[in-house]
Amino acid sequence: MGFFGYKYKNQSFSFPQINFVLLCFLDNSTMDHGSIIFSGILKNQEILSLKDNYSQIGVLADSNTKTHCYSAIKNALPIHHLLEVPPGEDHKNLDTCKLVWQLLTDMNFDRHALLIILGGGVLGDLGGFCAATYKRGIDFMIVPTTLLAQVDASIGGKLGIDFQHYKNQIGVFCQPKATIIDPSFLNTLPERELRSGFAEVIKHCLISDSAQWQAIRTKNLKEQDWTTLVHHSVEFKKSVTEKDPHEKGLRKILNFGHTIGHALESYFLAEGNRIFHGEAIAMGMVMESFIAFHKEMITETELNEITSYLIQIFEKQEMPWGDSALIQLTRQDKKNRDNKILMALPEGIGKAQWDVTVSEEELEKSFDYYRSI
Amino acid sequence: MGFFGYKYKNQSFSFPQINFVLLCFLDNSTMDHGSIIFSGILKNQEILSLKDNYSQIGVLADSNTKTHCYSAIKNALPIHHLLEVPPGEDHKNLDTCKLVWQLLTDMNFDRHALLIILGGGVLGDLGGFCAATYKRGIDFMIVPTTLLAQVDASIGGKLGIDFQHYKNQIGVFCQPKATIIDPSFLNTLPERELRSGFAEVIKHCLISDSAQWQAIRTKNLKEQDWTTLVHHSVEFKKSVTEKDPHEKGLRKILNFGHTIGHALESYFLAEGNRIFHGEAIAMGMVMESFIAFHKEMITETELNEITSYLIQIFEKQEMPWGDSALIQLTRQDKKNRDNKILMALPEGIGKAQWDVTVSEEELEKSFDYYRSI
Repeated sequence: MGFFGYKYKNQSFSFPQINFVLLCFLDNSTMDHGSIIFSGILKNQEILSLKDNYSQIGVLADSNTKTHCYSAIKNALPIHHLLEVPPGEDHKNLDTCKLVWQLLTDMNFDRHALLIILGGGVLGDLGGFCAATYKRGIDFMIVPTTLLAQVDASIGGKLGIDFQHYKNQIGVFCQPKATIIDPSFLNTLPERELRSGFAEVIKHCLISDSAQWQAIRTKNLKEQDWTTLVHHSVEFKKSVTEKDPHEKGLRKILNFGHTIGHALESYFLAEGNRIFHGEAIAMGMVMESFIAFHKEMITETELNEITSYLIQIFEKQEMPWGDSALIQLTRQDKKNRDNKILMALPEGIGKAQWDVTVSEEELEKSFDYYRSI
Repeated sequence: MGFFGYKYKNQSFSFPQINFVLLCFLDNSTMDHGSIIFSGILKNQEILSLKDNYSQIGVLADSNTKTHCYSAIKNALPIHHLLEVPPGEDHKNLDTCKLVWQLLTDMNFDRHALLIILGGGVLGDLGGFCAATYKRGIDFMIVPTTLLAQVDASIGGKLGIDFQHYKNQIGVFCQPKATIIDPSFLNTLPERELRSGFAEVIKHCLISDSAQWQAIRTKNLKEQDWTTLVHHSVEFKKSVTEKDPHEKGLRKILNFGHTIGHALESYFLAEGNRIFHGEAIAMGMVMESFIAFHKEMITETELNEITSYLIQIFEKQEMPWGDSALIQLTRQDKKNRDNKILMALPEGIGKAQWDVTVSEEELEKSFDYYRSI
């Protein structure tokens, strides 16, 4: 029986007429935990069901992915139960976990069941956490339906939920059985959602590949070559997270833009005025680049290059005035140690340092820099 | 600086005048995840604090261990925060987890903090789960204060909480940084609590060591040699869980008595009429031994030997009449697969088989056997 996906790092990378029905052809024996599979063309409707390998299969969707993604693929999936939860970051919490655990319990799912998560970063983080903790862990697969999830959230095994306005405060590290990436889902995304994911693509270029940065910064959002960029980001993120799965060192470079970005997200979440993850991260990258400039890790020219492109793509957002609240939120960042604020900052373009100590004064200056743009 | 504990499997095993202040002398570099440390005599009040290795230290206790254990050792501990939660299985739930997570958040605990859990099996399971999920996991140590926790719950990295009356429905596998066993805590236990832990000691003998079984079954509860028995049980459980940490095979033998025992616990939990874990497991061992006899895995003499000793120690308990409710609860057992009820059953004395399929009819017969005693 054929295997129609091909694993990450295999030669080619093109997926014309991608069709999700691939999933049915996955041969479980070819998958390791943490496999990345780019879906290929379906040539055959014959179904080699995952059902043979699992006692039961659940598909977790939210009302958005149920409408835009699930309906297109459900007939091609093996026999399964559909589990539906409300969409969005506002529901990335324990109440939604309780709903998922309740559904799994009611459906008599045992330890040999599989949960397939069809959604963006929020659902992948939450659904993965629920699967990793249900009966002390069942297998799960992530089918990321947003750019953000494809290039970032679904790779690397970070799972979790928000708690008391703190982002991802509760969670575990656990690899999905597989991540199945189908770029055709990008066509279903609103522009704002696509743009949000683009922030992570930009981040990956800035900290790892100056040539790729030069390539993207001459184009606007619509002109980007998504096939190449998804591949580039997945390759980079997978290599970093495999070298340092539990974020003891190297993996921390992926947090560039996220220390301030997460604080902003938490701030707006608490205000009931949520902004998209990528929008917050774009703001964070501007301010953290300023701090890198202040520490002479990048030049003024490089700072201006980064700032002007990020503002071109994301526009200038309203920056809250409550510096002390933002600083307190920054202090809750999981990378901090001994009450010091630690950041990942660029070192020139294409490299980054982690665990750079940042003072509250530098933080405040970076807030003012953003306001002054 | 001396290391006053000694690791499991080292030569001697005696702890006269055990004093908990040992904890302050633990050299973090000598501990691997999953270390078992038997505490020794404190000869020196000098404190080499764990504080040097951790950003902050929390001690999690419930109101029982706060009174009976914490008060005796608090002055000898490094600088720490005390976190207190309500005691008992009734509080082994998400609400108590939320309280712990909230306290850790309020105290600004970062990823480099340590949680020391001072309690029995319930608190070890719950506190370990909270630590393993707070900011995707901080280090924790378990200081088991009951016999049950010392010989069973604190060894092997199974963590979790109850959910909707299902025992340990939500949890993870995660090894504590260390388990520190001080048998002097056994002196603080009420007899019923000691007897509850004895059920696991009996189970370990029945499935692994017929000579030890013959040794214990000639003595009543008060005559047992706890030093030897704690050592024996820890050695056996650690060897099994190291060979099969995620319960793919061998580890399942530890579930002898637990398929029916857990169902009974869940039943009584739902009824608001809780019995102790060991009491349920003792009932489970009687009934599951009957099933083993029915399947010709043990002789009638062996069955009678097991039943009569368990009834001598634990007395006959009231057996509920709701067979179908008990069967439904048994079906939720985490070891089941493909909707089959699977059990670990003794094969003679001193050995066991796992994944033995049991029919509903056999279950009902075993219930009737217990009623007929």
